[in-house]
Amino acid sequence: MTYCIGMRLDRGLVFMADTRTSAGVDNFATSKKMFTWEIPGERAITIMTAGNLATTQSMISLLEERSKAVDDRDPSILKATTMFQVARLVGATLKEVIADSSPNGQSAGEQFSASVIVGGQIADGQPTIFMVYPEGNFIEITADTPFFQIGETKYGKPIIVRAYDADMSFEDAVKLLLVSFDSTVKSNLSVGLPFDLHLYEADSFSTARQLRIEADDPTYAAISSGWGDALKDAFRQLPSYPL
Amino acid sequence: MTYCIGMRLDRGLVFMADTRTSAGVDNFATSKKMFTWEIPGERAITIMTAGNLATTQSMISLLEERSKAVDDRDPSILKATTMFQVARLVGATLKEVIADSSPNGQSAGEQFSASVIVGGQIADGQPTIFMVYPEGNFIEITADTPFFQIGETKYGKPIIVRAYDADMSFEDAVKLLLVSFDSTVKSNLSVGLPFDLHLYEADSFSTARQLRIEADDPTYAAISSGWGDALKDAFRQLPSYPL
Repeated sequence: MTYCIGMRLDRGLVFMADTRTSAGVDNFATSKKMFTWEIPGERAITIMTAGNLATTQSMISLLEERSKAVDDRDPSILKATTMFQVARLVGATLKEVIADSSPNGQSAGEQFSASVIVGGQIADGQPTIFMVYPEGNFIEITADTPFFQIGETKYGKPIIVRAYDADMSFEDAVKLLLVSFDSTVKSNLSVGLPFDLHLYEADSFSTARQLRIEADDPTYAAISSGWGDALKDAFRQLPSYPL
Repeated sequence: MTYCIGMRLDRGLVFMADTRTSAGVDNFATSKKMFTWEIPGERAITIMTAGNLATTQSMISLLEERSKAVDDRDPSILKATTMFQVARLVGATLKEVIADSSPNGQSAGEQFSASVIVGGQIADGQPTIFMVYPEGNFIEITADTPFFQIGETKYGKPIIVRAYDADMSFEDAVKLLLVSFDSTVKSNLSVGLPFDLHLYEADSFSTARQLRIEADDPTYAAISSGWGDALKDAFRQLPSYPL
Protein backbone atom coordinates (compact mmCIF):
# COMPACT_ATOMS: atom_id res chain seq x y z
CA MET A 1 0.00 0.00 0.00
CA THR A 2 0.95 3.66 -0.10
CA TYR A 3 -0.37 6.98 1.09
CA CYS A 4 -0.03 10.19 -0.95
CA ILE A 5 -1.88 13.49 -0.74
CA GLY A 6 -1.91 16.40 -3.16
CA MET A 7 -3.58 19.53 -1.78
CA ARG A 8 -4.30 22.93 -3.26
CA LEU A 9 -4.03 26.06 -1.10
CA ASP A 10 -4.44 29.70 -2.03
CA ARG A 11 -0.67 30.08 -1.78
CA GLY A 12 0.25 27.02 -3.83
CA LEU A 13 0.31 23.24 -3.80
CA VAL A 14 1.44 20.73 -1.17
CA PHE A 15 2.42 17.16 -1.96
CA MET A 16 3.30 14.46 0.54
CA ALA A 17 4.07 10.78 -0.08
CA ASP A 18 5.18 7.92 2.10
CA THR A 19 8.02 5.70 0.88
CA ARG A 20 7.15 2.17 1.94
CA THR A 21 6.74 -0.44 -0.73
CA SER A 22 5.78 -3.98 0.12
CA ALA A 23 4.90 -7.31 -1.41
CA GLY A 24 3.57 -8.87 1.77
CA VAL A 25 4.51 -7.94 5.32
CA ASP A 26 7.74 -9.96 5.10
CA ASN A 27 8.98 -8.18 2.01
CA PHE A 28 9.13 -4.42 2.28
CA ALA A 29 11.55 -1.69 1.33
CA THR A 30 11.85 2.06 0.94
CA SER A 31 11.03 3.41 -2.50
CA LYS A 32 10.52 6.95 -3.70
CA LYS A 33 6.99 7.67 -4.90
CA MET A 34 7.34 11.38 -5.60
CA PHE A 35 8.99 12.70 -8.76
CA THR A 36 9.46 16.25 -9.92
CA TRP A 37 10.38 18.01 -13.16
CA GLU A 38 11.02 21.68 -13.72
CA ILE A 39 12.06 24.28 -16.24
CA PRO A 40 12.99 27.15 -13.94
CA GLY A 41 10.67 30.09 -14.36
CA GLU A 42 8.49 28.18 -16.84
CA ARG A 43 7.05 24.99 -15.31
CA ALA A 44 7.11 22.77 -12.22
CA ILE A 45 5.49 19.32 -12.23
CA THR A 46 5.12 16.79 -9.42
CA ILE A 47 3.95 13.20 -9.82
CA MET A 48 3.11 10.77 -6.98
CA THR A 49 2.30 7.12 -7.57
CA ALA A 50 0.44 4.30 -5.82
CA GLY A 51 -0.02 0.70 -6.87
CA ASN A 52 2.12 -1.89 -8.60
CA LEU A 53 5.75 -0.72 -8.35
CA ALA A 54 6.79 -2.23 -11.69
CA THR A 55 3.95 -0.33 -13.35
CA THR A 56 4.70 3.01 -11.70
CA GLN A 57 8.48 2.80 -12.19
CA SER A 58 7.98 1.90 -15.82
CA MET A 59 5.57 4.81 -16.27
CA ILE A 60 8.04 7.26 -14.72
CA SER A 61 10.87 5.89 -16.87
CA LEU A 62 8.80 6.27 -20.02
CA LEU A 63 7.86 9.83 -19.05
CA GLU A 64 11.56 10.55 -18.55
CA GLU A 65 12.30 8.82 -21.87
CA ARG A 66 14.79 6.45 -20.27
CA SER A 67 14.14 4.14 -23.22
CA LYS A 68 16.22 6.51 -25.33
CA ALA A 69 19.98 7.13 -25.26
CA VAL A 70 20.89 9.87 -22.79
CA ASP A 71 21.58 12.47 -25.49
CA ASP A 72 18.29 11.85 -27.27
CA ARG A 73 16.10 12.36 -24.24
CA ASP A 74 13.67 15.24 -24.46
CA PRO A 75 10.75 14.33 -22.19
CA SER A 76 7.47 15.44 -23.66
CA ILE A 77 6.27 16.18 -20.11
CA LEU A 78 8.55 19.23 -20.47
CA LYS A 79 6.96 20.18 -23.78
CA ALA A 80 3.25 19.98 -22.99
CA THR A 81 1.79 23.48 -23.02
CA THR A 82 -0.82 23.01 -20.28
CA MET A 83 -1.24 20.90 -17.14
CA PHE A 84 -4.25 19.30 -18.83
CA GLN A 85 -1.93 18.04 -21.58
CA VAL A 86 0.46 16.76 -18.93
CA ALA A 87 -2.37 14.82 -17.30
CA ARG A 88 -3.38 13.31 -20.66
CA LEU A 89 0.21 12.28 -21.31
CA VAL A 90 0.51 10.69 -17.87
CA GLY A 91 -2.83 8.91 -18.31
CA ALA A 92 -1.90 7.56 -21.74
CA THR A 93 1.47 6.34 -20.45
CA LEU A 94 -0.05 4.68 -17.39
CA LYS A 95 -2.71 2.93 -19.47
CA GLU A 96 -0.08 1.73 -21.95
CA VAL A 97 2.15 0.25 -19.23
CA ILE A 98 -0.76 -1.58 -17.59
CA ALA A 99 -1.95 -2.93 -20.95
CA ASP A 100 1.59 -4.14 -21.76
CA SER A 101 1.79 -6.03 -18.46
CA SER A 102 -1.68 -7.55 -18.45
CA PRO A 103 -2.11 -10.93 -20.11
CA ASN A 104 -5.44 -9.77 -21.49
CA GLY A 105 -4.02 -6.59 -22.96
CA GLN A 106 -6.73 -3.99 -22.68
CA SER A 107 -8.05 -4.54 -19.17
CA ALA A 108 -6.66 -2.43 -16.34
CA GLY A 109 -5.92 -5.74 -14.56
CA GLU A 110 -6.08 -5.45 -10.78
CA GLN A 111 -2.66 -6.98 -10.38
CA PHE A 112 -0.81 -4.37 -12.44
CA SER A 113 -3.01 -1.44 -11.52
CA ALA A 114 -1.80 1.93 -10.28
CA SER A 115 -3.08 5.44 -9.57
CA VAL A 116 -1.28 8.72 -9.99
CA ILE A 117 -1.54 12.26 -8.67
CA VAL A 118 0.02 14.84 -10.98
CA GLY A 119 0.13 18.52 -10.16
CA GLY A 120 2.03 21.70 -10.81
CA GLN A 121 1.96 24.84 -12.90
CA ILE A 122 2.96 25.83 -16.41
CA ALA A 123 3.46 29.48 -17.38
CA ASP A 124 0.19 31.27 -18.25
CA GLY A 125 -1.78 28.62 -16.31
CA GLN A 126 -2.90 28.24 -12.72
CA PRO A 127 -1.45 25.73 -10.23
CA THR A 128 -3.61 22.61 -10.36
CA ILE A 129 -3.69 18.91 -9.51
CA PHE A 130 -5.13 15.90 -11.35
CA MET A 131 -5.87 12.39 -10.18
CA VAL A 132 -5.19 9.87 -12.93
CA TYR A 133 -6.90 6.47 -12.94
CA PRO A 134 -5.44 3.20 -14.25
CA GLU A 135 -7.77 3.47 -17.26
CA GLY A 136 -5.93 6.65 -18.26
CA ASN A 137 -8.77 9.07 -17.56
CA PHE A 138 -8.49 11.72 -14.84
CA ILE A 139 -10.24 14.34 -12.72
CA GLU A 140 -9.09 17.82 -11.74
CA ILE A 141 -9.08 19.39 -8.30
CA THR A 142 -11.80 21.99 -7.55
CA ALA A 143 -12.67 24.36 -4.74
CA ASP A 144 -15.16 21.77 -3.47
CA THR A 145 -12.62 18.95 -3.61
CA PRO A 146 -9.36 20.71 -2.78
CA PHE A 147 -7.26 17.57 -2.19
CA PHE A 148 -6.70 14.14 -3.70
CA GLN A 149 -5.51 11.03 -1.90
CA ILE A 150 -4.24 7.74 -3.34
CA GLY A 151 -3.39 4.47 -1.61
CA GLU A 152 -4.67 3.88 1.92
CA THR A 153 -6.95 6.90 2.00
CA LYS A 154 -9.57 6.24 4.68
CA TYR A 155 -7.87 6.52 8.07
CA GLY A 156 -6.39 9.93 7.31
CA LYS A 157 -9.34 11.53 5.56
CA PRO A 158 -11.63 12.75 8.40
CA ILE A 159 -9.05 15.15 9.87
CA ILE A 160 -8.34 16.74 6.47
CA VAL A 161 -12.04 17.20 5.78
CA ARG A 162 -12.44 18.93 9.15
CA ALA A 163 -9.31 21.08 9.38
CA TYR A 164 -8.54 22.05 5.77
CA ASP A 165 -8.72 25.73 4.99
CA ALA A 166 -7.76 27.15 1.59
CA ASP A 167 -5.90 30.09 3.09
CA MET A 168 -3.87 28.10 5.62
CA SER A 169 -0.10 28.57 5.75
CA PHE A 170 2.35 25.99 4.43
CA GLU A 171 3.39 25.33 8.04
CA ASP A 172 -0.19 24.50 9.03
CA ALA A 173 -0.73 22.45 5.89
CA VAL A 174 2.32 20.32 6.62
CA LYS A 175 1.15 19.88 10.20
CA LEU A 176 -2.27 18.78 8.90
CA LEU A 177 -0.75 16.29 6.48
CA LEU A 178 1.52 14.91 9.21
CA VAL A 179 -1.51 14.31 11.45
CA SER A 180 -3.27 12.57 8.57
CA PHE A 181 -0.20 10.45 7.77
CA ASP A 182 0.28 9.64 11.46
CA SER A 183 -3.27 8.24 11.74
CA THR A 184 -2.61 6.13 8.65
CA VAL A 185 0.81 4.86 9.75
CA LYS A 186 -0.69 3.84 13.10
CA SER A 187 -3.39 1.79 11.34
CA ASN A 188 -1.72 0.27 8.27
CA LEU A 189 1.70 -1.42 8.41
CA SER A 190 2.21 -0.95 4.69
CA VAL A 191 2.43 2.84 5.02
CA GLY A 192 5.69 4.04 6.56
CA LEU A 193 8.25 6.77 7.05
CA PRO A 194 10.21 8.59 5.75
CA PHE A 195 7.77 10.96 4.03
CA ASP A 196 8.64 13.06 0.99
CA LEU A 197 7.31 16.60 1.02
CA HIS A 198 7.13 19.13 -1.79
CA LEU A 199 5.81 22.66 -1.26
CA TYR A 200 5.06 24.47 -4.48
CA GLU A 201 4.59 28.23 -4.17
CA ALA A 202 2.18 29.58 -6.79
CA ASP A 203 3.97 31.29 -9.69
CA SER A 204 7.40 30.21 -8.45
CA PHE A 205 7.84 27.64 -11.28
CA SER A 206 10.37 25.89 -9.07
CA THR A 207 10.48 22.49 -7.37
CA ALA A 208 13.20 23.58 -4.95
CA ARG A 209 11.21 23.36 -1.71
CA GLN A 210 11.46 19.64 -1.08
CA LEU A 211 12.44 17.76 2.02
CA ARG A 212 12.34 14.29 3.45
CA ILE A 213 10.82 13.80 6.90
CA GLU A 214 12.67 10.95 8.56
CA ALA A 215 11.34 8.53 11.17
CA ASP A 216 13.32 10.27 13.92
CA ASP A 217 12.17 13.78 13.02
CA PRO A 218 11.58 15.56 16.37
CA THR A 219 8.66 17.72 15.17
CA TYR A 220 6.90 14.72 13.69
CA ALA A 221 7.42 12.86 16.97
CA ALA A 222 5.96 15.83 18.89
CA ILE A 223 2.97 16.05 16.53
CA SER A 224 2.40 12.31 16.69
CA SER A 225 2.45 12.08 20.49
CA GLY A 226 0.79 15.47 20.96
CA TRP A 227 -2.10 14.54 18.70
CA GLY A 228 -3.19 11.75 21.01
CA ASP A 229 -3.34 14.15 23.97
CA ALA A 230 -4.94 16.91 21.90
CA LEU A 231 -7.62 14.49 20.69
CA LYS A 232 -8.37 13.45 24.27
CA ASP A 233 -8.72 17.10 25.26
CA ALA A 234 -10.99 17.73 22.27
CA PHE A 235 -13.03 14.69 23.24
CA ARG A 236 -13.46 15.95 26.82
CA GLN A 237 -14.84 19.26 25.51
CA LEU A 238 -17.79 17.52 23.87
CA PRO A 239 -21.09 17.10 25.69
CA SER A 240 -21.71 13.66 27.16
CA TYR A 241 -24.64 11.62 25.94
CA PRO A 242 -27.35 11.70 28.64
CA LEU A 243 -28.25 8.15 29.62
CA MET B 1 -22.22 -1.16 3.95
CA THR B 2 -22.69 -1.03 7.69
CA TYR B 3 -20.84 0.10 10.77
CA CYS B 4 -21.03 -1.75 14.09
CA ILE B 5 -18.78 -1.62 17.15
CA GLY B 6 -18.68 -3.91 20.16
CA MET B 7 -16.49 -2.61 22.99
CA ARG B 8 -15.54 -4.04 26.37
CA LEU B 9 -15.17 -1.73 29.38
CA ASP B 10 -14.44 -2.55 33.01
CA ARG B 11 -18.09 -1.85 33.81
CA GLY B 12 -19.60 -3.88 30.98
CA LEU B 13 -20.10 -4.00 27.24
CA VAL B 14 -21.22 -1.36 24.74
CA PHE B 15 -22.71 -2.17 21.36
CA MET B 16 -23.63 0.31 18.64
CA ALA B 17 -24.90 -0.38 15.12
CA ASP B 18 -26.08 1.80 12.28
CA THR B 19 -29.30 0.84 10.48
CA ARG B 20 -28.74 1.67 6.83
CA THR B 21 -28.96 -1.15 4.33
CA SER B 22 -28.36 -0.56 0.66
CA ALA B 23 -28.08 -2.30 -2.67
CA GLY B 24 -26.63 0.63 -4.55
CA VAL B 25 -27.02 4.30 -3.70
CA ASP B 26 -30.48 4.39 -5.30
CA ASN B 27 -31.85 1.54 -3.22
CA PHE B 28 -31.50 1.95 0.51
CA ALA B 29 -33.65 1.41 3.55
CA THR B 30 -33.51 1.21 7.33
CA SER B 31 -32.95 -2.24 8.74
CA LYS B 32 -32.13 -3.33 12.26
CA LYS B 33 -28.70 -4.93 12.63
CA MET B 34 -28.67 -5.42 16.39
CA PHE B 35 -30.50 -8.31 18.06
CA THR B 36 -30.67 -9.27 21.72
CA TRP B 37 -31.72 -12.32 23.73
CA GLU B 38 -31.97 -12.62 27.47
CA ILE B 39 -32.97 -14.88 30.30
CA PRO B 40 -33.29 -12.37 33.15
CA GLY B 41 -30.68 -12.97 35.80
CA GLU B 42 -29.05 -15.74 33.79
CA ARG B 43 -27.84 -14.53 30.38
CA ALA B 44 -27.83 -11.56 28.02
CA ILE B 45 -26.64 -11.90 24.42
CA THR B 46 -26.27 -9.26 21.71
CA ILE B 47 -25.59 -9.92 18.03
CA MET B 48 -24.74 -7.33 15.38
CA THR B 49 -24.43 -8.15 11.69
CA ALA B 50 -22.75 -6.74 8.58
CA GLY B 51 -22.87 -7.99 5.02
CA ASN B 52 -25.50 -9.55 2.79
CA LEU B 53 -28.90 -8.83 4.38
CA ALA B 54 -30.49 -12.07 3.16
CA THR B 55 -27.64 -13.97 4.81
CA THR B 56 -27.79 -12.12 8.12
CA GLN B 57 -31.59 -12.15 8.38
CA SER B 58 -31.63 -15.85 7.63
CA MET B 59 -28.95 -16.48 10.26
CA ILE B 60 -30.90 -14.55 12.89
CA SER B 61 -34.11 -16.39 11.98
CA LEU B 62 -32.37 -19.75 12.29
CA LEU B 63 -30.90 -18.76 15.65
CA GLU B 64 -34.40 -17.79 16.79
CA GLU B 65 -35.73 -21.06 15.34
CA ARG B 66 -38.30 -19.31 13.18
CA SER B 67 -38.26 -22.39 10.99
CA LYS B 68 -40.24 -24.13 13.72
CA ALA B 69 -43.86 -23.64 14.76
CA VAL B 70 -44.15 -20.97 17.43
CA ASP B 71 -44.82 -23.43 20.25
CA ASP B 72 -41.85 -25.61 19.36
CA ARG B 73 -39.31 -22.83 19.42
CA ASP B 74 -36.58 -23.24 22.00
CA PRO B 75 -33.56 -21.36 20.63
CA SER B 76 -30.33 -23.16 21.43
CA ILE B 77 -28.69 -19.75 21.82
CA LEU B 78 -30.60 -19.69 25.11
CA LYS B 79 -29.30 -23.15 26.05
CA ALA B 80 -25.57 -22.82 25.38
CA THR B 81 -23.73 -22.88 28.70
CA THR B 82 -20.89 -20.49 27.77
CA MET B 83 -20.38 -17.51 25.47
CA PHE B 84 -17.79 -19.60 23.62
CA GLN B 85 -20.53 -22.10 22.80
CA VAL B 86 -22.76 -19.25 21.65
CA ALA B 87 -20.01 -18.04 19.32
CA ARG B 88 -19.59 -21.57 17.89
CA LEU B 89 -23.32 -21.81 17.31
CA VAL B 90 -23.41 -18.42 15.57
CA GLY B 91 -20.38 -19.34 13.47
CA ALA B 92 -21.85 -22.67 12.40
CA THR B 93 -25.18 -21.05 11.53
CA LEU B 94 -23.54 -18.27 9.54
CA LYS B 95 -21.36 -20.71 7.62
CA GLU B 96 -24.38 -22.90 6.85
CA VAL B 97 -26.44 -19.99 5.50
CA ILE B 98 -23.62 -18.79 3.25
CA ALA B 99 -23.00 -22.32 1.96
CA ASP B 100 -26.73 -22.76 1.21
CA SER B 101 -26.80 -19.53 -0.82
CA SER B 102 -23.56 -19.99 -2.73
CA PRO B 103 -23.74 -21.82 -6.03
CA ASN B 104 -20.46 -23.54 -5.20
CA GLY B 105 -21.65 -24.71 -1.80
CA GLN B 106 -18.61 -24.69 0.42
CA SER B 107 -16.98 -21.37 -0.45
CA ALA B 108 -17.77 -18.30 1.65
CA GLY B 109 -18.75 -16.58 -1.62
CA GLU B 110 -18.10 -12.82 -1.58
CA GLN B 111 -21.62 -12.09 -2.71
CA PHE B 112 -23.34 -13.81 0.21
CA SER B 113 -20.70 -13.05 2.80
CA ALA B 114 -21.36 -11.53 6.22
CA SER B 115 -19.59 -10.84 9.51
CA VAL B 116 -20.99 -10.90 12.98
CA ILE B 117 -20.16 -9.49 16.40
CA VAL B 118 -21.65 -11.50 19.26
CA GLY B 119 -21.22 -10.53 22.90
CA GLY B 120 -22.79 -10.81 26.29
CA GLN B 121 -22.56 -12.76 29.49
CA ILE B 122 -23.84 -16.09 30.82
CA ALA B 123 -24.00 -16.83 34.53
CA ASP B 124 -20.65 -18.02 35.99
CA GLY B 125 -18.81 -16.44 33.03
CA GLN B 126 -17.34 -13.02 32.32
CA PRO B 127 -18.80 -10.49 29.87
CA THR B 128 -17.06 -10.99 26.54
CA ILE B 129 -17.33 -10.31 22.81
CA PHE B 130 -16.48 -12.43 19.75
CA MET B 131 -16.05 -11.50 16.11
CA VAL B 132 -17.34 -14.26 13.83
CA TYR B 133 -16.06 -14.60 10.27
CA PRO B 134 -18.06 -15.86 7.27
CA GLU B 135 -16.06 -19.10 7.41
CA GLY B 136 -17.60 -19.74 10.84
CA ASN B 137 -14.44 -19.30 12.87
CA PHE B 138 -14.08 -16.47 15.40
CA ILE B 139 -11.81 -14.47 17.67
CA GLU B 140 -12.40 -13.21 21.20
CA ILE B 141 -11.83 -9.74 22.58
CA THR B 142 -8.75 -9.24 24.81
CA ALA B 143 -7.28 -6.44 26.93
CA ASP B 144 -4.99 -5.59 23.99
CA THR B 145 -7.87 -5.53 21.48
CA PRO B 146 -10.77 -4.23 23.55
CA PHE B 147 -13.14 -3.53 20.65
CA PHE B 148 -14.27 -5.09 17.39
CA GLN B 149 -15.62 -3.29 14.34
CA ILE B 150 -17.45 -4.71 11.31
CA GLY B 151 -18.48 -3.02 8.07
CA GLU B 152 -16.90 0.30 7.13
CA THR B 153 -14.27 0.24 9.88
CA LYS B 154 -11.47 2.55 8.77
CA TYR B 155 -12.73 6.13 9.07
CA GLY B 156 -13.85 5.69 12.66
CA LYS B 157 -10.96 3.66 13.99
CA PRO B 158 -8.23 6.26 14.78
CA ILE B 159 -10.33 8.12 17.38
CA ILE B 160 -11.21 4.90 19.23
CA VAL B 161 -7.59 3.79 19.29
CA ARG B 162 -6.60 7.15 20.77
CA ALA B 163 -9.40 7.84 23.26
CA TYR B 164 -10.45 4.38 24.51
CA ASP B 165 -9.91 3.76 28.18
CA ALA B 166 -11.07 0.55 29.88
CA ASP B 167 -12.39 2.38 32.94
CA MET B 168 -14.35 5.05 31.06
CA SER B 169 -17.99 5.63 31.96
CA PHE B 170 -20.87 4.50 29.75
CA GLU B 171 -21.57 8.19 29.02
CA ASP B 172 -18.03 8.71 27.73
CA ALA B 173 -18.09 5.45 25.80
CA VAL B 174 -21.29 6.46 24.00
CA LYS B 175 -19.76 9.84 23.23
CA LEU B 176 -16.67 8.11 21.82
CA LEU B 177 -18.74 5.79 19.65
CA LEU B 178 -20.84 8.72 18.39
CA VAL B 179 -17.68 10.56 17.33
CA SER B 180 -16.47 7.42 15.55
CA PHE B 181 -19.85 6.91 13.86
CA ASP B 182 -20.00 10.58 12.91
CA SER B 183 -16.63 10.39 11.09
CA THR B 184 -17.89 7.32 9.24
CA VAL B 185 -21.29 8.77 8.32
CA LYS B 186 -19.56 11.88 6.95
CA SER B 187 -17.34 9.73 4.68
CA ASN B 188 -19.53 6.83 3.54
CA LEU B 189 -23.07 7.32 2.27
CA SER B 190 -23.95 3.69 2.99
CA VAL B 191 -23.67 4.20 6.76
CA GLY B 192 -26.56 6.16 8.25
CA LEU B 193 -28.69 7.04 11.23
CA PRO B 194 -30.55 6.06 13.32
CA PHE B 195 -28.07 4.16 15.49
CA ASP B 196 -29.01 1.33 17.84
CA LEU B 197 -27.28 1.33 21.20
CA HIS B 198 -27.11 -1.35 23.84
CA LEU B 199 -25.32 -0.84 27.16
CA TYR B 200 -24.72 -4.06 29.04
CA GLU B 201 -23.76 -3.66 32.69
CA ALA B 202 -21.53 -6.49 33.91
CA ASP B 203 -23.40 -9.08 35.99
CA SER B 204 -26.79 -7.49 35.23
CA PHE B 205 -27.85 -10.34 32.89
CA SER B 206 -30.29 -7.93 31.32
CA THR B 207 -30.64 -6.34 27.87
CA ALA B 208 -32.91 -3.59 29.14
CA ARG B 209 -30.61 -0.62 28.51
CA GLN B 210 -31.23 -0.12 24.81
CA LEU B 211 -32.07 2.99 22.90
CA ARG B 212 -32.24 4.26 19.36
CA ILE B 213 -30.40 7.48 18.51
CA GLU B 214 -32.39 9.24 15.80
CA ALA B 215 -31.08 11.57 13.10
CA ASP B 216 -32.51 14.60 14.92
CA ASP B 217 -31.05 13.70 18.31
CA PRO B 218 -29.87 17.02 19.82
CA THR B 219 -26.87 15.58 21.70
CA TYR B 220 -25.68 13.79 18.58
CA ALA B 221 -26.04 17.03 16.63
CA ALA B 222 -24.02 18.87 19.31
CA ILE B 223 -21.31 16.20 19.30
CA SER B 224 -21.19 16.14 15.51
CA SER B 225 -20.84 19.88 15.07
CA GLY B 226 -18.74 20.32 18.22
CA TRP B 227 -16.25 17.69 17.10
CA GLY B 228 -15.24 19.77 14.07
CA ASP B 229 -14.47 22.75 16.27
CA ALA B 230 -12.80 20.63 18.94
CA LEU B 231 -10.59 19.02 16.30
CA LYS B 232 -9.56 22.42 14.99
CA ASP B 233 -8.68 23.51 18.54
CA ALA B 234 -6.71 20.30 19.04
CA PHE B 235 -4.94 20.89 15.75
CA ARG B 236 -3.95 24.43 16.77
CA GLN B 237 -2.36 23.11 19.96
CA LEU B 238 0.17 21.08 18.00
CA PRO B 239 3.59 22.45 17.13
CA SER B 240 3.95 23.69 13.55
CA TYR B 241 6.47 22.05 11.28
CA PRO B 242 9.46 24.41 10.90
CA LEU B 243 10.05 25.10 7.22
